[in-house]
Amino acid sequence: MSRNQILKVLSSVLMVTTITLIFPLVVGLLYAEKEAKVFLAIIVSLMIISYIFSLFKDTDAKHSTKSGFLVVGLSWLLITIIGALPFYFSGAIPNFFDCIFESASGFTTTGASILNEIDSLPKSILFWRAETHFIGGLGILVFMVALIPLADQRNIYMLKAEMPGPSVGKLKPKLRDNMKISVITYVVLSITMLICLLCCRLSLFDAITTTMATAGTGGFMIYNESVAYYHSVGVDVVCTIFMILFGVNFNFYFFLYLKQWKQIISEEVRWYFVVIFGAIALIIWNSWHMFNGFWDALHHVSFTVASTISTTGFVITNYELWPAFSRNIILLLMFCGACGGSTGGGIKVSRLILMFKQMTRDISRMLNPRSVHVVTMDGKAVEEDVTRDVYSFMMVYVVLLVVGTLLVSLDGTTFETSLTAVITCINNVGPGFGMVGPICNFSGFSNFAKMVLSLIMLLGRLEIFPMLLLFSPALYKFGK
Amino acid sequence: MSRNQILKVLSSVLMVTTITLIFPLVVGLLYAEKEAKVFLAIIVSLMIISYIFSLFKDTDAKHSTKSGFLVVGLSWLLITIIGALPFYFSGAIPNFFDCIFESASGFTTTGASILNEIDSLPKSILFWRAETHFIGGLGILVFMVALIPLADQRNIYMLKAEMPGPSVGKLKPKLRDNMKISVITYVVLSITMLICLLCCRLSLFDAITTTMATAGTGGFMIYNESVAYYHSVGVDVVCTIFMILFGVNFNFYFFLYLKQWKQIISEEVRWYFVVIFGAIALIIWNSWHMFNGFWDALHHVSFTVASTISTTGFVITNYELWPAFSRNIILLLMFCGACGGSTGGGIKVSRLILMFKQMTRDISRMLNPRSVHVVTMDGKAVEEDVTRDVYSFMMVYVVLLVVGTLLVSLDGTTFETSLTAVITCINNVGPGFGMVGPICNFSGFSNFAKMVLSLIMLLGRLEIFPMLLLFSPALYKFGK
Repeated sequence: MSRNQILKVLSSVLMVTTITLIFPLVVGLLYAEKEAKVFLAIIVSLMIISYIFSLFKDTDAKHSTKSGFLVVGLSWLLITIIGALPFYFSGAIPNFFDCIFESASGFTTTGASILNEIDSLPKSILFWRAETHFIGGLGILVFMVALIPLADQRNIYMLKAEMPGPSVGKLKPKLRDNMKISVITYVVLSITMLICLLCCRLSLFDAITTTMATAGTGGFMIYNESVAYYHSVGVDVVCTIFMILFGVNFNFYFFLYLKQWKQIISEEVRWYFVVIFGAIALIIWNSWHMFNGFWDALHHVSFTVASTISTTGFVITNYELWPAFSRNIILLLMFCGACGGSTGGGIKVSRLILMFKQMTRDISRMLNPRSVHVVTMDGKAVEEDVTRDVYSFMMVYVVLLVVGTLLVSLDGTTFETSLTAVITCINNVGPGFGMVGPICNFSGFSNFAKMVLSLIMLLGRLEIFPMLLLFSPALYKFGK
Repeated sequence: MSRNQILKVLSSVLMVTTITLIFPLVVGLLYAEKEAKVFLAIIVSLMIISYIFSLFKDTDAKHSTKSGFLVVGLSWLLITIIGALPFYFSGAIPNFFDCIFESASGFTTTGASILNEIDSLPKSILFWRAETHFIGGLGILVFMVALIPLADQRNIYMLKAEMPGPSVGKLKPKLRDNMKISVITYVVLSITMLICLLCCRLSLFDAITTTMATAGTGGFMIYNESVAYYHSVGVDVVCTIFMILFGVNFNFYFFLYLKQWKQIISEEVRWYFVVIFGAIALIIWNSWHMFNGFWDALHHVSFTVASTISTTGFVITNYELWPAFSRNIILLLMFCGACGGSTGGGIKVSRLILMFKQMTRDISRMLNPRSVHVVTMDGKAVEEDVTRDVYSFMMVYVVLLVVGTLLVSLDGTTFETSLTAVITCINNVGPGFGMVGPICNFSGFSNFAKMVLSLIMLLGRLEIFPMLLLFSPALYKFGK
């Protein structure tokens, strides 16, 4: 891919992102906020820049995985910067590093915030925060592939860099169709949730922002107290159910639509629910004394488990007060994350299943060196390449955790804070423990730590490699 | 291997371990302690049991990796129990679970203690504590292979289960010779250290126990304050140097003896020293304000770094007071551990080198799927099997860390305490952070947590697999 082509794609990304800024502009106009002017100014400026970029001549060079990775990485950096502009120029967040952090946290659907005071922000800014989750959720590039007419080959390479989770048992109709199905599922689920929330008597603005934050498994709420603000069991239940549903592999809904009952419960989905119910049971057992009876326990624990495993990060209870064992279960759920092919983050259930299967195989191979075991998933043999990729992903993941924690600890924060800040950012969850716990935020970090954490959020969201490769000098030696 | 053969080998292990109990008996007699009677009673009883076991008829069945693992795992469990007997029957440690923990900590050369008061213990018990490190250090089975005449084939399988670190660039003379060389190196290094300590005006008893604890990279000292008790720069320097030397791959000394200068500095040894000097530099830079000038900093930091990377666990300074970044470096050194083929624990430098090389290769393969990269070590290509084993080791290691932390956290201790307790135990270091920090000990844990941690120490020392496989039902289906 030539430089011109990359600029061309980036200009499309710029254009699409600029269009999404129209929604908070409308909100600003409806509520007659002065921030509307800021949005308008940003939209006009970006439109001009985007137009200039689009003038570059598109040559038809050979595409490669490399350039796919490069485009994906650069696109996410670009939208992170664009997303930060409204925060900065409206004066809502005075420090530009904070704006970048907030924007990265939004688009990566992490939901970690540096804001101490959320309630008093203008509606248009609150809307934009929630919308970044919605955009990030399905992935700006899934949007792109669906919306922008590009050659099929190019899409494949981009998708390779983008698609969350290891590609086992994926639906394989035409790629464009797959994208459309995902988008439709996403929208239908979102509308359903919106209606449910409206039935719980939330205002339209509250319902839309909460839905967008849930759909993207993000976590930005429009109140300091997060979902706890509503003190409504109904809202909590709706959120719990939809957080779990947005964490399911979207193939599930496709098979549901096709009425292919046999395929519908894949191994990943089955384990996803096993983990959810197992975690709820263990935490209720361990934290029983913290609650007023079974229903109170079920209410708070299932919400927190759903919020964590789907990597949403909504809060209705301060889980830091729970016993150590329960807290560690929550920490493990952060690592686990949702299913591949969903909007959730984390390591992904399918990757963990493959890891455990491969581990079991390796152990039995140590016992019987001559035995031949094939790792299977949903009854089909998994190629050696896929399982090896899982291992290398895990290794790089661990190294990033270590390096990230080391860099963040330069701030002098406690071990728990620096480690769980990195864990919650790489898995795109939101709240962690200690200084970044459920009732705290990330404002206490230095600018340096905030930039490290922003990068880690992007690395986590893009499943590490596309973003990591931006630092590889080999990447920039692309063809003419 | 038949049941009879396994019992036969175990009876030999029992015999050898019983013989080593004679040394503390002698110490007890010299100091006219009443504990001498306890040692005598234990020795006589074990001798009788060992004789009965040795009566089983040895049939010549086919050996397998399985039975090798089984024997190694069972042997370590056996010596752990034997090691606990003197503590229990002398009344030095009233709780039997504590005795098992202390014994496991000794033989695995971890050096984590449940004792609040060490100084007042009888000399014979103090000697036995230190001696368990010395025995554990080189590995009871390295002793066994060298001392007990067994068929060569059987030795190979045992060694496979025992030999620390991935087998890259190992010396390959006859196996028995290799063992002898290791033992000789171990003894020569120990005697040299003993002489150095005597030159520092330590009493013979102090010098011998300190040497044994250092040689095994263990960490049990005969004073509550650990090495800080002596307030002697000389002792600190001797310990620093020998902790580092015992962590070097013993091939180094063999090549030194053979004067093969080209091979002497292997990639592993080079990186071992790079890590040591790098860690010292980073910590001095970060903790500068904690010390009185350069020499004071160098003194305390190099001792702590040497103590941690060699997984010895001696203490002369409370590193918990250092800044977060320095503390995290110390934590990382615990993971790193010493070289393969040394008495140190941890992941091992060679394994980390292979991991990083393989990771780099995987990343570049993602960029250029058609490129062929071979992982090399010391200029030689490393077989795919070895690198895959490294990955599966790391995976199982991480899973054990997680499961261990979860189980230990049932005690309700802080995240930092439960996590670093497991880290320091699996890597056979000794002190961790928080409740198990350098000036604390493991007495605060429940019996359950102590048993979990004992098992984790054994898993760490045997590089996980032999001990883990004891839990596999498939293991017990061995031939007649």
